[in-house]
Amino acid sequence: MGSPTFNVVDVHTHMYPPAYIQILESRKSIPLIRRFAGAKDPRYIILPAEAEALDKISEDASSSHLPGRPVTSHYSSLAQKLHFMDTHKIDISVISLANPWLDFVPSAEAGETAKSVNQEFSNMCGEAPGRLYFFGALPLTAPPETLLTSIGRIKELKYCRGVILGTTGLGKGLDDPALIPVFKALAANGLTIFLHPHYGLPSEVWGPRATEEYGHVLPLALGFPMETTIAVARMYLAGVFEAVPDLRMLLAHSGGTLPFLAGRIESCIVHDGHLVREGKVGPKRRTIWQVLKEQVYLDAVIYSEVGLKAAIDASGVDRLMFGTDHPFFPPLTSDEQGEWESMTWNSEAVKKALGDGSDGTKAVLGNNAVEVLRLYKTAQED
Amino acid sequence: MGSPTFNVVDVHTHMYPPAYIQILESRKSIPLIRRFAGAKDPRYIILPAEAEALDKISEDASSSHLPGRPVTSHYSSLAQKLHFMDTHKIDISVISLANPWLDFVPSAEAGETAKSVNQEFSNMCGEAPGRLYFFGALPLTAPPETLLTSIGRIKELKYCRGVILGTTGLGKGLDDPALIPVFKALAANGLTIFLHPHYGLPSEVWGPRATEEYGHVLPLALGFPMETTIAVARMYLAGVFEAVPDLRMLLAHSGGTLPFLAGRIESCIVHDGHLVREGKVGPKRRTIWQVLKEQVYLDAVIYSEVGLKAAIDASGVDRLMFGTDHPFFPPLTSDEQGEWESMTWNSEAVKKALGDGSDGTKAVLGNNAVEVLRLYKTAQED
Repeated sequence: MGSPTFNVVDVHTHMYPPAYIQILESRKSIPLIRRFAGAKDPRYIILPAEAEALDKISEDASSSHLPGRPVTSHYSSLAQKLHFMDTHKIDISVISLANPWLDFVPSAEAGETAKSVNQEFSNMCGEAPGRLYFFGALPLTAPPETLLTSIGRIKELKYCRGVILGTTGLGKGLDDPALIPVFKALAANGLTIFLHPHYGLPSEVWGPRATEEYGHVLPLALGFPMETTIAVARMYLAGVFEAVPDLRMLLAHSGGTLPFLAGRIESCIVHDGHLVREGKVGPKRRTIWQVLKEQVYLDAVIYSEVGLKAAIDASGVDRLMFGTDHPFFPPLTSDEQGEWESMTWNSEAVKKALGDGSDGTKAVLGNNAVEVLRLYKTAQED
Repeated sequence: MGSPTFNVVDVHTHMYPPAYIQILESRKSIPLIRRFAGAKDPRYIILPAEAEALDKISEDASSSHLPGRPVTSHYSSLAQKLHFMDTHKIDISVISLANPWLDFVPSAEAGETAKSVNQEFSNMCGEAPGRLYFFGALPLTAPPETLLTSIGRIKELKYCRGVILGTTGLGKGLDDPALIPVFKALAANGLTIFLHPHYGLPSEVWGPRATEEYGHVLPLALGFPMETTIAVARMYLAGVFEAVPDLRMLLAHSGGTLPFLAGRIESCIVHDGHLVREGKVGPKRRTIWQVLKEQVYLDAVIYSEVGLKAAIDASGVDRLMFGTDHPFFPPLTSDEQGEWESMTWNSEAVKKALGDGSDGTKAVLGNNAVEVLRLYKTAQED
């Protein structure tokens, strides 16, 4: 553990508890987990392009051309998560289910599935008290009353500090007025929303060469952060942040591209004839900058000093929180049990931007998350 | 004009010469210009959402609910362009046709249309020697030999310094191998490509509320810069910057979102199993950072200090160039003949980021453009 006044906290780190793995193994369409005779680990198939590859492949295909990614122990083993944390000197992890969460679970089952998955997360945290907290999963496909009951249940779980959410909401996006009661219930219970992308952009935008030649680079590097940006901009334009003033959102990947595009969003609003005519551009308008500085937190999963500085400039050094995206982006040319470059790029960016050992670096690497997500150890855990 | 050693240069400023206006007036589908009985100015209708509105409207509709934007004298009058430049203390403008350029012109006509449009631009520059240069338009729908002939003709035009290009290329995007000869011809002739968005993203990403409630904010504020980012990332992954080392591109809107996402692009490449297996991730790989610092220039049309600083951090203070996007984003609540906020936000961002009167500010506001685009006055023009 770090010094008494400084813990490194990872707010962006995923886990697949056993019940969730079982659901994925039972599925016939993406997302799904499938075993191949030629491969040590089962494969997790999640992207549309991978589903296409899956349709063309036989069960005993050679392991070098299998679709998806191997489901290693990094996905589901608590011991492995703690080993990763120890290797990278991470004191506390706020774990969350990975995309696409429970978005695909049939309505009638969603409530019970959420209950069981959140209980498994709660149990995992209980096995390493003080080192693990979690963002719960919501049964978004369930009827409204089930959804609100689920929030009531989550808030009672000792180690739960919020919920992880995708961008589809109830099917119409996060600017859907039907979500306002959900946002209000989360805000009223002090539950932070960790907003995370999954669906990216329609695949046509990547062009005819993407699938064969560019790997997953375009949908992951561009589609993911653009999806997040669009979702938050839609919420902002719909007035969600004004309708729910206590709403607190942690945006994955340093807000997608929001810090960089905030100026353009503002300019396009004040220069929009329709919005001006409708009286929506007045002196009382809440700007996107205000939302970034008062209602939004950004993780520091941006892999460069350039992006990180822009995120800090946009939201403030007290609103950035370190993350790793573990177990995704494992090292491909070195041992998975050793150091992960995807982690060190992010921690190095923080140190370069703010100075090694500085108060700002300590804030972003851990102190902000401790304060914002209330990760205080109880006397019992010390 | 400014001091002898410092001119303010606007590299992102559009003009519609008379021949182009005529083409737009003759069209039945977007882009088109149409006159309405109830309105002083004809309307320029360009976005898919505006085309939908057009289908529902009668010719004598009231002027407060007309689709598109008024085609004022700012679009086509040289005197108006010079007045705008004088009002904002802009010494030199590098004018260009606005989107979608000649993308919609039938193949058989494209060569002649390009010739006539480029000649009109050349004539306009000749009317204000030393104050106007231009980026030419390419007949991308024409047969390859016509296209290459057009480049040969453009380079002979005294005030032409490059070409403005959209993201569709010959129909398959800018990562199309068939474009390599075009890029090589442009590079060999010292013609800079000004890459500009038009098509945005598929409208489904904006959700069901966008058209009615959010004006044009989402497609303009997010769709445009995301389109540019995707186009350049595709070129980069296709190896275009390595295949054409002399290629020089000026990216609209400070590179879309490229400076902010460059770190994530790099991480997604080195962690991509497919690219690693294909041997595409080796020590000799040209990184996106190298492209940003060596082959790309960014305009400073980003409307905030936050974004501008990230652009400078990514590409270097010697690679940013001031722009206004005139005649788009006119002031809605003050006189169009006075100061445009869309311009001052960008100039203020430069001064805040680099210091008023500093060498960096002079570089971004003008000196970089003078050097890169060779905007030296001849003795005759002095």
